[in-house]
Amino acid sequence: MITNASELTSTPIIILVEPQMGENIGMVARAMANFGLRELRLVNPRDGWPNEKAVAAASKADHVIEATKVFDTLEEALADTQYVLATTARQRDGFKPVHGPEAACRQVATRVDQRCAILFGRERWGLTNEEVARADAIVTFPVDPDFTSLNIAQAVLLVSYEWRRAEQQGEKLPFVGPETLPAQKHELYGMFDQLEDALDRRGYFRPETKKAKLIDNMRAVLTRPGFTSAEISLLRGLINSLDRFSPEQPKGRREED
Amino acid sequence: MITNASELTSTPIIILVEPQMGENIGMVARAMANFGLRELRLVNPRDGWPNEKAVAAASKADHVIEATKVFDTLEEALADTQYVLATTARQRDGFKPVHGPEAACRQVATRVDQRCAILFGRERWGLTNEEVARADAIVTFPVDPDFTSLNIAQAVLLVSYEWRRAEQQGEKLPFVGPETLPAQKHELYGMFDQLEDALDRRGYFRPETKKAKLIDNMRAVLTRPGFTSAEISLLRGLINSLDRFSPEQPKGRREED
Repeated sequence: MITNASELTSTPIIILVEPQMGENIGMVARAMANFGLRELRLVNPRDGWPNEKAVAAASKADHVIEATKVFDTLEEALADTQYVLATTARQRDGFKPVHGPEAACRQVATRVDQRCAILFGRERWGLTNEEVARADAIVTFPVDPDFTSLNIAQAVLLVSYEWRRAEQQGEKLPFVGPETLPAQKHELYGMFDQLEDALDRRGYFRPETKKAKLIDNMRAVLTRPGFTSAEISLLRGLINSLDRFSPEQPKGRREED
Repeated sequence: MITNASELTSTPIIILVEPQMGENIGMVARAMANFGLRELRLVNPRDGWPNEKAVAAASKADHVIEATKVFDTLEEALADTQYVLATTARQRDGFKPVHGPEAACRQVATRVDQRCAILFGRERWGLTNEEVARADAIVTFPVDPDFTSLNIAQAVLLVSYEWRRAEQQGEKLPFVGPETLPAQKHELYGMFDQLEDALDRRGYFRPETKKAKLIDNMRAVLTRPGFTSAEISLLRGLINSLDRFSPEQPKGRREED
């Protein structure tokens, strides 16, 4: 039970203060679900709750929508929390630390036994100074100073993304690319032998005085990529096809095939 | 003038492939503007262009909307690019490196003299394998495996955010070796055409059901190195020799020459 509780409390609560559009609430739920956040609270939503437009916009984030709790005041919504971040695009007077999303989410991720919440304001004008004053710290985004307005779902998305990264201490991607270890050199040299033999039999290296330079260049081009074993196998297949098989019709007449 | 050109080319182009909803295009423009991206390209947008819903959803990102360029094919949209990232939520077979948004954007930010582009697929089903095969590397997001679907504007937002962070972290190198600048993609595609034609005339791509996969793999292997113009010229010379000239004696009898 302690393990479960501890797991739950490491995940921040997202709190929307007086959200107006159901669509935005749904998109917030979806953004949260993308990065493993589960707990959404609404303070005095304009169109009440539940909200059909929110359900539609949430796509398949039903688990977030169904667990959403509604409060009359921010004070009530924060009652059980221990560490609160307020998002804002504007500088505020006061003594609060200001973090970017990454640093803010590192703060949250390290508070594993605490209930943390992140506040987002109204679509049109954000949080009041009084609301910001309830937070322990401010989060703002490294936006272009000429174009600072993030919509609410985008702001939640960035915070959720950074929380997941902080919580996992790096990027745990859903899949990784193929092995990109370069092959052992003997594999590369085997390809050189095959290719150079095929070219030599076609007179590519004439005149003889140029041969050494041509080979140097060719090897340089094929060495720089650091081809893997699998890539070299594929390339040797291509070379073999070009070398061993005759074309079925002259080049350029393919469209008459 | 050189300074301006250099500054422009350090900022990636966002390319949306067959976007369906004008609202999404507008939200993409807005997300780009938030983090200082300027250049949007559309490949074959469903509802044509210009699009009133895109303008409305872009909020005040008019400068992005007005500069948007439309192309009939992805190939044309990529013709002048040198390094291409494809975003995808699904694992693909093949030989491409896979990065998270942060690592991917560090790649872009260090390529100060290169035209970089980031591809985003259709709302419903993303990019085809053939489209992904045109990219140098894959970007995927560290999402919850149970809830992986990001909408297109959200995906653009995360990449734009990471690009701005990377670009501002002083990771831009003052110069790069010109000898390692990747060629423009049309040069690479010219090599693909030549090679695939030569192989096709030899029956390499049979049975027909395997052809698309074989081509994807081949293109992936030849895209990853980021060959320069000079390297592509050399490789095309090799392919031409193998394709057009018959061997003077059977393979394996070279020692009797």
